[in-house]
Parts: sequence; structure tokens; C-alpha cells
Amino acid sequence: MKAFMDKDFLLETETAKKLYHDYAETTPILDYHCHINPREIAEDRQFDNITQVWLGGDHYKWRFMRSCGVEEKYITGDASDYEKFCKWAECMGKAIGNPLFHWSHLELRKYFGYSGVLSKKTADEVWNLCNAKLKEPSMSVRNMIKQSNVTLICTTDDPIDSLEWHKAIAEDDSFDVQVLPAWRPDKAMHIQKSDFADYVAKLAAASDTKITTFAELKAVLTNRMEFFASMGCNISDHSLEYVMYTPASEEEVTAIFAKRLSGEVLTKDEENKYKTEFMLFTGRECHRLNWTMQLHYGVKRDNNKLMYKKLGPDTGFDCINNYAPSAQMADFLNALNETEQLPRTILYSLNPNDNQAIGTILGCFQDSSAVAKIQQGSAWWFNDNKTGMIDQMISLANLGNLSGFVGMLTDSRSFLSYTRHEYFRRILCNLIGNWVENGEFPDDFDILEEIVKDISYYNAVRYFGFKL
Amino acid sequence: MKAFMDKDFLLETETAKKLYHDYAETTPILDYHCHINPREIAEDRQFDNITQVWLGGDHYKWRFMRSCGVEEKYITGDASDYEKFCKWAECMGKAIGNPLFHWSHLELRKYFGYSGVLSKKTADEVWNLCNAKLKEPSMSVRNMIKQSNVTLICTTDDPIDSLEWHKAIAEDDSFDVQVLPAWRPDKAMHIQKSDFADYVAKLAAASDTKITTFAELKAVLTNRMEFFASMGCNISDHSLEYVMYTPASEEEVTAIFAKRLSGEVLTKDEENKYKTEFMLFTGRECHRLNWTMQLHYGVKRDNNKLMYKKLGPDTGFDCINNYAPSAQMADFLNALNETEQLPRTILYSLNPNDNQAIGTILGCFQDSSAVAKIQQGSAWWFNDNKTGMIDQMISLANLGNLSGFVGMLTDSRSFLSYTRHEYFRRILCNLIGNWVENGEFPDDFDILEEIVKDISYYNAVRYFGFKL
Amino acid sequence: MKAFMDKDFLLETETAKKLYHDYAETTPILDYHCHINPREIAEDRQFDNITQVWLGGDHYKWRFMRSCGVEEKYITGDASDYEKFCKWAECMGKAIGNPLFHWSHLELRKYFGYSGVLSKKTADEVWNLCNAKLKEPSMSVRNMIKQSNVTLICTTDDPIDSLEWHKAIAEDDSFDVQVLPAWRPDKAMHIQKSDFADYVAKLAAASDTKITTFAELKAVLTNRMEFFASMGCNISDHSLEYVMYTPASEEEVTAIFAKRLSGEVLTKDEENKYKTEFMLFTGRECHRLNWTMQLHYGVKRDNNKLMYKKLGPDTGFDCINNYAPSAQMADFLNALNETEQLPRTILYSLNPNDNQAIGTILGCFQDSSAVAKIQQGSAWWFNDNKTGMIDQMISLANLGNLSGFVGMLTDSRSFLSYTRHEYFRRILCNLIGNWVENGEFPDDFDILEEIVKDISYYNAVRYFGFKL
Repeated sequence: MKAFMDKDFLLETETAKKLYHDYAETTPILDYHCHINPREIAEDRQFDNITQVWLGGDHYKWRFMRSCGVEEKYITGDASDYEKFCKWAECMGKAIGNPLFHWSHLELRKYFGYSGVLSKKTADEVWNLCNAKLKEPSMSVRNMIKQSNVTLICTTDDPIDSLEWHKAIAEDDSFDVQVLPAWRPDKAMHIQKSDFADYVAKLAAASDTKITTFAELKAVLTNRMEFFASMGCNISDHSLEYVMYTPASEEEVTAIFAKRLSGEVLTKDEENKYKTEFMLFTGRECHRLNWTMQLHYGVKRDNNKLMYKKLGPDTGFDCINNYAPSAQMADFLNALNETEQLPRTILYSLNPNDNQAIGTILGCFQDSSAVAKIQQGSAWWFNDNKTGMIDQMISLANLGNLSGFVGMLTDSRSFLSYTRHEYFRRILCNLIGNWVENGEFPDDFDILEEIVKDISYYNAVRYFGFKL
Repeated sequence: MKAFMDKDFLLETETAKKLYHDYAETTPILDYHCHINPREIAEDRQFDNITQVWLGGDHYKWRFMRSCGVEEKYITGDASDYEKFCKWAECMGKAIGNPLFHWSHLELRKYFGYSGVLSKKTADEVWNLCNAKLKEPSMSVRNMIKQSNVTLICTTDDPIDSLEWHKAIAEDDSFDVQVLPAWRPDKAMHIQKSDFADYVAKLAAASDTKITTFAELKAVLTNRMEFFASMGCNISDHSLEYVMYTPASEEEVTAIFAKRLSGEVLTKDEENKYKTEFMLFTGRECHRLNWTMQLHYGVKRDNNKLMYKKLGPDTGFDCINNYAPSAQMADFLNALNETEQLPRTILYSLNPNDNQAIGTILGCFQDSSAVAKIQQGSAWWFNDNKTGMIDQMISLANLGNLSGFVGMLTDSRSFLSYTRHEYFRRILCNLIGNWVENGEFPDDFDILEEIVKDISYYNAVRYFGFKL
Repeated sequence: MKAFMDKDFLLETETAKKLYHDYAETTPILDYHCHINPREIAEDRQFDNITQVWLGGDHYKWRFMRSCGVEEKYITGDASDYEKFCKWAECMGKAIGNPLFHWSHLELRKYFGYSGVLSKKTADEVWNLCNAKLKEPSMSVRNMIKQSNVTLICTTDDPIDSLEWHKAIAEDDSFDVQVLPAWRPDKAMHIQKSDFADYVAKLAAASDTKITTFAELKAVLTNRMEFFASMGCNISDHSLEYVMYTPASEEEVTAIFAKRLSGEVLTKDEENKYKTEFMLFTGRECHRLNWTMQLHYGVKRDNNKLMYKKLGPDTGFDCINNYAPSAQMADFLNALNETEQLPRTILYSLNPNDNQAIGTILGCFQDSSAVAKIQQGSAWWFNDNKTGMIDQMISLANLGNLSGFVGMLTDSRSFLSYTRHEYFRRILCNLIGNWVENGEFPDDFDILEEIVKDISYYNAVRYFGFKL
């Protein structure tokens, strides 16, 4: 029996251990997609206790606590931080097979030096240990990032954002990790939402202009994209129900936009036409600016209306949307490609059943402008677990070029989440290790070193074109 | 090489063996969903031969025999029981990788003490051995149940049913296993069927009233549900093409019901509106009565019309229906939740590709009224095999709270099927054993004992609220 | 650590080794579906260099090279054969986890006696070795087939085809491998295509008649099917977006056909009605002629319009179409079955998520006219890799009769692809070996020998009814 989560966690063979410890473990981290707040980096926030870090905004943990029958009071309610932590510890003790169990213990080991098991029994011990540790200067936000060996972070930002905190960080010579914005224009795309007109007004205000037509909207977006680019942004990120393709004429979309701004409700067909045109426009702009476009899809959000009214979005009430026609995704990419304006694109579906469809679509649009120009993103959100990552990598390897994969990201709101890169790399090294041990790939460690380091870090540096 | 199906069948590690033999093996069985006939328990039926038990109504076996090219005469036709058994034995010999091979040999080992392999060569030996054994008093239906360590059984019953056999069993002090009815109002929901009006008339007659409106139908159903509740029922069970959500007003549904009763054919949209409203009504009644609602979906039934005309339903001609929008399922659950009338609910899809969508929907509707209030049902019907069960449990563990899982059921028409609980528990213990041996979960046997026993039995006791 | 791709490649247990080396390895090959050019067999083509054999028409390799960022010039362009090979070798070196890596090295070992690893470093060595070997008489097309232990090949042929090369091969006593045509009437079915009317005209010309009505089309097709049958054909093969069922009257389809021939564009509904009727007609003709019908579906072809204009079809720009309602497939098969005209049928989906739906549909239409009359085809095209084959076989075993499976085919344009049968057999033997070693199936080597040899070869001989 292997010891519980020791240094060889998830590394089942000697080859896997060598790949991880000799190549992957010490390679830097490039976190090209996350949801952390740049202000906390700029201000170098220090946390008061482990509940703030762990349970402040982590809807993964909230969902799990609800699955254990914990009262909402102890999750997002007015219980004390200590009480919340105790409830969490109790849940953790039985979270067998859940990635939260591994994520949490990886964090306890790496950042707090704790090698025990968190449960009801150890709750006080862990609470005291973590809180003492969090008071040390080494556990400020910046120091957590630095000790994690991170070289670059991309946040997720609204077109309206002033990027003031990114600017502050960039101008601060005492912190040399790049913190770049990423373009997330979802509010300008989600024309069906009740606050769309309000948002358009805010966007106009942020640009010191007015937006009364679709053409004006696009002009403002272009202007803001150029501002983002001037701040180092080179990634556009999108959340879609599915990658749709309902083409329409410019006139039609202009009319739809006008109709909506006037307060009318759109048909589903009109909504899809607007979104298709919006995404084609964005794709072309990404191509022009040499950005990468990330398409996240397959989600149905805010399903529990009762809780949505209480807690708002991103609080643990989202699920997989299993309607995502691969035919439309292929047609969308083709529409950009046909005019030679298809940017580097990364496709993420929340539905793991889409792995193979994505894998075969990639191959239709690769060209010599980049290695693996169209990528399948790493196992995303609910798939970010051992089997989800293995399935994504095996599918990608079967259908495309695994060695060109840009690898892992945290997608997280927490500064302790860099251990998810560790989790990913252990799984990657074990997968490759098994192939080598099983005689399915040669034990040529020059090539293996290159592959492991590239997927861990260097592919992302080259693919996105970061200056490091 | 491990011996063929010995006591450590499917238990690959020492931890797995310990978990199974020390904790799971001796824990009682609670079979909360099956299709056995309560009359056979009340009358304590004794079978004449193994063909009656095995091939009398088991469409799994019938399908397999047809796949082997066996003539229908030897399956459901007029061949002798001995001839049918011989054909089955011949098929069995080559049923490599099929769960029937394991189920059958588990039954031969447990109930008949046979440790050989059933095939053409051993057909006579097994025929004689089983038939001799079946004549023993220990092999009456009640004794089969008792020696299987079963404490409680839920059958599947039509609202019209008098539940006379359940009453007889309850009143018989000589048999202390609870045999409770479960509410299965499919015939009242399947408004599109040609015999719908006939069924409504029968339902009215059973309640000594008339049903001319949708309101009257609901009143009768409520009345019958209360009768079922008085007989110990606390589960409502439904077979759906998919979990749909096509909301309509009370007036609209009333009109649809009247239209159908008058003999008209409904549109698909009308059918969906009626069914949606029917299920919302049922869900609310379940909540009021503190019942659990089980939704079985993803089936297309009776596909072979030629054979359906000859043999009727449930004869082995059903398949997976791969149309099941997760968006509608989420909206259906939300509609019940929004008025705080969502009962405990268990979701089963026949399509294993729905595992992850279900897993993420669960998390949207959990609350503190129960541990794992919304459950993913165990691998159902065609998925009730080794890989199907592993996939369901890994998915559930990744996305939710495996330790709160209510576990296995037989879903069977046979009194020998309790070995499917054994099959499930071996697979569960091996899965957990692998995690422990691989350092992915601590070897804390206090917690492991609790998890294994809970999933095997105690979660179901608590979740459904049985009095045991 | 196992040696890289030695004689026990993919055989992890002693049982697996025994099954493969004693039973599978020496059993002949029956390649019942491929895309090789019979003219090259008739003329016994000899290749000039390895680039001709490997990269001449292999869109799997082309896709992979594009995924590596290689310029099209080195893929399908005007670079020299040597330059193309060097680019391929460079890509190969890092093709970890991709089946091309295994396929290529199996071919290097079997046909060229090379036991090294192809990469940038060994490109020249392999180029020289292969080209020298290709000049030997043993490497003519016929000798490659013979040394591969192939007894029968089915090509893929248009109804217009004169089958002159098949005739030439049949009449040539010096070559005793049967090379039979297979009926592929896709161009007569794809009524939506711009060249449909042209094709119908050509078909009429080939039959020395005219086609102005749907009835005349069917008469010509029947006539051609009989000609194909006279040349030994007994397989009809079809490429479908999905197996659809949109029934229409004969009159309606006649009108749709006339409309299209007159140059009008059809609605999607009209297209589906025509195709449904076309396939029902074909199925009935297959039944009458005692042919097997192969349905390949789940593909969206030619997605990259820019490249399609340059290179045409089958050049590496196809993807999975994930719209394929199982309900329609079941209804289509039922429509043929209801009149007792359902032929032996093999179902292949490009979407591996369809495995289980297919597996359950099979069981609805099996009868005693053949063992496993309705088959799930082996893992097809993008699924033809280790995990794809394992998943297909486990699903088939769980849901049906694996021992009746007709097994592997190459689906290839290359005469070196017979090693894909070797790849399949190694995976099959390892899967079965694991079951036996794990105590899940008895170590009865009489039965195991029969199962392995049947799936490798003899099931196909019996199922299709070849005379061997």
C-alpha cells in the first residue's frame, strides 16, 4: 500500500516518478486563465484565517457541503468562520473520490506543511496551524504566488474594467510576476439578459462615447480591445451555452440589436444570430490582434432560482448543458477560416462526452501558423479531476497532437490553487510513465523531458506568445 | 492467475478483501426497487425447476439468447423447460464479458452451492443439481429472501392495485421481512397510449368514483397515494422517455386531458405539457407525503413491433433513447424547488453518457433536508455491469458525495437476484480499496467501514426513512 | 519496464501472450471493408519509396502533420518525397499516445524488419532501409497481401464501376486471394449534392438506359446490384450523417426525386424522406440478395471549405457529427424488420458515445437467421486506437454477444495496413487475458481458442457467407 498522498502521490511507476520529480516538479507555472482579483495582488492581501481563503468564494466546496446536508448558514450564511471551517472539515473527512479531497490536502501539504488528514477529528489542529501560518509574511498573496513558481497570470476582465490594478502591479518593480488582463466580453454578448441595455450604456460611458447601433458597439469593443492589448492582454475568453452558428446579414443583426436596445424581447433565433455575429466579429479581431480565443461552452447556469435570488451567480448552481451540436461548432470555425481570419482557438466543453467531437474538429483547422493552432482545453471545471484529466489527455492523444498541448490552468478564485498544476502534472507524468513502462512509447528521456516540460509550461509560453 | 469467481471475486487488493469480507458481506440488504410479484411471497412459492426461476421472465437472458442466434421457440416458445435450459447453458458457455455470466455464476454459487462453470458440457449436471435443490424447503421464495439477509423490499405497483398481497404479508407474523408497495402511476401519465381512457376508467372504478376532468384525476391519485402511504409506501417511481419541462397553465392541461378522454390524438407538444404537469403534481404530492421520487428515463421501449405483437412489453426489445436535454431536467427540478416542494429525488438514465450531466444537476438542488437529497441512482438496467457501476460511482464521487449514496437495488423479477447486491458491493469495495492502496484516500478503517456499510445499507435506511 | 513494441506488445499477462501467440497471430485475415484500389492488385504495383506508400493518400497522417504545424507544402504540396518523409519522421518522434505511432512502428517491424524508433534522428536510416526493401519482389502489392496472410478483401465500389479489375484478378490463377467488390451507392443517395443529376445521368449511361423517375433509378440499382452479386459482392456499404427515419409515401418520394432532377433545391425534410426511402429500398434488396448492410454514420465531412477547394474530399477535414437520434435508428431497423426484410446489418458510429445506444439497439432485432445478426462494427476511423477498441469491445460484451463479433477490418487505402488486424488482436487477447487472469472468466483454453479465432476470422467467414 502506498502512503497517503506522499511525495509520490499518483506516480505509480519509476518512470512516472522520474518524469515528475526530474522534469515537471520544478518547471515554472503559467496560469493563463483564472478568476483571481488583481487588486488583492496589487495590495498584497494577507488573510486572517483559512476559512477566508478556502470558503470565501469557492463554490466547489459550497456544493459539496450542500451535498452533505449542511445548512446554508454554515456555507454562505452568518455562522462564524470557525464554525464554517468545522463543518467543512467534517464533510472533508468523508469526501472519498472527490477532487476536493486531493486539492485540499495538496494545499495543506504545500502551503501549510501539514501531512495529516483533515476531518472532524483534526479540525482544530488544522484551523490553528493554518491560521498561524497565514499570519506569516510568506503567506501574503504575492508570496504565495512567488513560492508557487508562477511567472505569469492572466485574470478575467470585463471590457469596462479600467485595469488600474494590472497597471499598478506592472509598475511595481518589487513584484516581477506578470499579471495580465484577459478580455471577457460576455455581458456584451448575452443580449437576452435583462440588464443588457444597462450594460451597453456603461460600456459606452467607459469609452466616453455613445452606443446606439451594432456598428457603434463594435467600434467601442475594438477600441477597448486595443486598450487591453496595450496592457499586455492577448487572450479573449467566452462563456457560451454552445458554440453556435446561425449566420445572418449585417443588416439583420443591426436590426436585432436595435430591437433589443429598445427594450423588446428577442426570439431564440434572433438571439443566436446576434451571438453568432458577435463571436465572428470577436474572432476576426482576435486574429487581427494576434490573440488567442478561448471558447468555454456546455454550461447551463443559475439553475436554482431560489438560491440565485439569495446569492447571485457563481455560487454553485450550474450544470452541464448537453446540447452542443458539433456541426455548428465546425461551421463557426470554418466561417472564420474561410476568410483566413481564424485566430488560435482553445475549445473547452463542460460535457466530457464532447471530448472526441472536439478532438476531431481540431484536426480540420490546423495549419502551419502555430503548433496545434486549435487546441482542446484541459479538463475544465467539473472535469478537473483525475479521471477527467486522463480522459481529456487520452482523447487528445488519440485524435491529435498531445505533445503540443498548452496544458493546465487553475480557473480559480484562490491563491492556493496552483497545486492544481501539481495535480495535473502528476497525472500527466503517470499517464506517460505507464505508456513507457508498458512498451507503448520508447524510454528516450530526452524526448520525454521535452514533452513533459512543454506541456507543463513551454508550449503555453510559445503558443500565446508571452514575453518571458 | 486468480481462481475463477472464488470468494475474492473482483477483490484485487488486500484492502478490497478486508472491506468486503469484514464490512460489506454481512451487512443486510434493503431492496428499495424491484419488480417481484408479492403474491409469490405471500404464497411462499416453490419452483419446479431452474428454467422457471431463471428463464420465466428474464428478458436480459432472452436478449442474449437471441444474440446467439437461438430460435424463439427455445426462448419464449413451446420448447420444454429442459430444452430451454440446455440452450441457455450453451449460450452461457461463451458469454464472455457479459454480466449475465457473472450474475448466473454468483447465483449458482450462493443458492445452489455449485462452483463449476455452466456450459453445454455441464448443462445436465447443473439442471439436476438445481432442480433437486429447488425442491428443498430452504428454497421457497420466503426462505430465499431470508437467507439473502434482506430486511425490506419495495415492489412496483399500479395505483389501481388493491395491495392485498402486501396486506397479507404484513399480517403474517411468521415472515418478518417488510414488503412495501411503491407507487408507479405510469399508465396515468402515458396519455398518448391507446388504452389511456380505459385505464382512467379502471382507476375511477378502483376508487369508486368518476374521473371526467384532470382535477378529478388528481383527486383520485391523491386519494390512492394516501392509501398506498397507509400501507407503508414512501416511494414514487416513474418511467420517462426523458425528464421533460414544457410548462403549461392548469386550464391548458385540463383541456388537453379532456381532448384525450374524448378520443382525440394529441400533438407531441400537448403530450409533453400533460406529462410535465402530471410530474409536477406528483412531485408536490411526494413532497407533501415525505416520499422519495425516482425518475427512470432514457428508454425507447418496444422497438420490434413484430415481436411486440407476439410477446407484449418487457420482453427484451427496448433500447437507449439518447435524447434527454439536461436543460429541461434542471428546469423541472427548479420548478418544484422554487415553491419549496422538491421531494427527495433519485435520477436514473439508461444512457451512461448522462452520468456527468446528472452529477452536476444534483449539486444544484441539494439542501439540508437530507444528506444527498438529490441522488444519482445506481447503474441501471443495461448499465448494471462492472464497468457501468464503476463509471457511475466514479462520476458520482467526482461530482458529488459518494459517501451519501443510497447504493444498489435489484430492479429484478427474480428471487435469486439478491446476488446483484453482492456484485455491487464487491465492485464498490474494490474501487475504494484501489484508492486506499494507491495513496488516494487514507487507510482509516473506521471511516472506511462507515462508508462501505452506509452505501451498502444504512444510507438507504435513513434516506427513505424506513422503520427498521 | 517492457521493451518498446517487442513481440509481446500490448500483451500484459501470460494468458494474453498465450491467446495471441498460440491462437490469434497465425489465424488468417479477412478484410471485409477497405478502400484499396483493385487496379494496383491487378497490376501488382511496386512502390518507388516509402513516402508513396505512407503519405500518398493517408489523411490520418496528413492531419497529424498539420497538428504539428507543418506547412502544407510538405504534406500534400510539391515538396520532394524525401522532404515529406523527413517532416513526417520529425512529427512521428513526438506522436506520443497517437495510434499512428503504433501503426507505423508495427508496419516498420513487420514489413521492413526495422526494430528502431522513427524520428528526426533516424529519418535517413529508415528512408534508405524502406526504399531498398520496397524494390524487392516480395514487396509488390500482391506479395504484401500474401505475406499478410489475407484470404479475402472487399473493396469499396461505386454502382457505376465496371469491376474490370476485380474480374481481371478473379481470372488470374496466379493470385488466389479473393478480391470482391462492395456496393457503395452514396452518390445515388446524396440527393442534396450539386452533382446529383450528373451522377444519375452517368449511372443511367453505365446501365445503357435512362433514369427519369425514382422507379427507374431503383430498377437500375437493382440491376447493378445483381451485376455486383454476380461478381461475388455480398456487402452494401453506406455513409450517413445519421441513421434517419423520416417515412414518406412512394408518391411523395417520386415527386421529391423529380423535383431534384429538375434542378430545384430540396428542403432538409425532403432530403431526409428521399434518403430514408432510398435506404429502406437498399435494405430490402440486401435482404433479398442475402447481403450484409453496413451503416457508417456520425460524420460531418469537408468542414474546411478553403482546403476542400484545394484538395477535394477525403483529405483530412472531417469530424464527428454528434447528432444521431437512437430513436430514428431503432425505427428504421424496425421498418425493415416489420416486413421481415431486415438484412444482416452492421452499425458503425464515428461518435464513441453511441457505443451503448448501438449495443442496446442490436438486441432488439436479433433473430435465429444468424449469430449476432445485427452487429456493432469494430471501432471505426477516429476510434481505431487502443482505448477506442477496448471501449467498443467492453460495451459490446456488456450489452450483447462479444463471442459472435465479426471483428476487425482495415478501412484503409494502404497495403501495409494489415497490421491493424494485429493491433486489434493484441488488444482483444489482452482484454480477454485480463478477464481470465482476474478470475472473471474460466481459464478453459478450448473455449478461449474458439472465441479468439472466431473474432479474429471465422465469425466473419460465416457471417458474410464467403466461400473460403
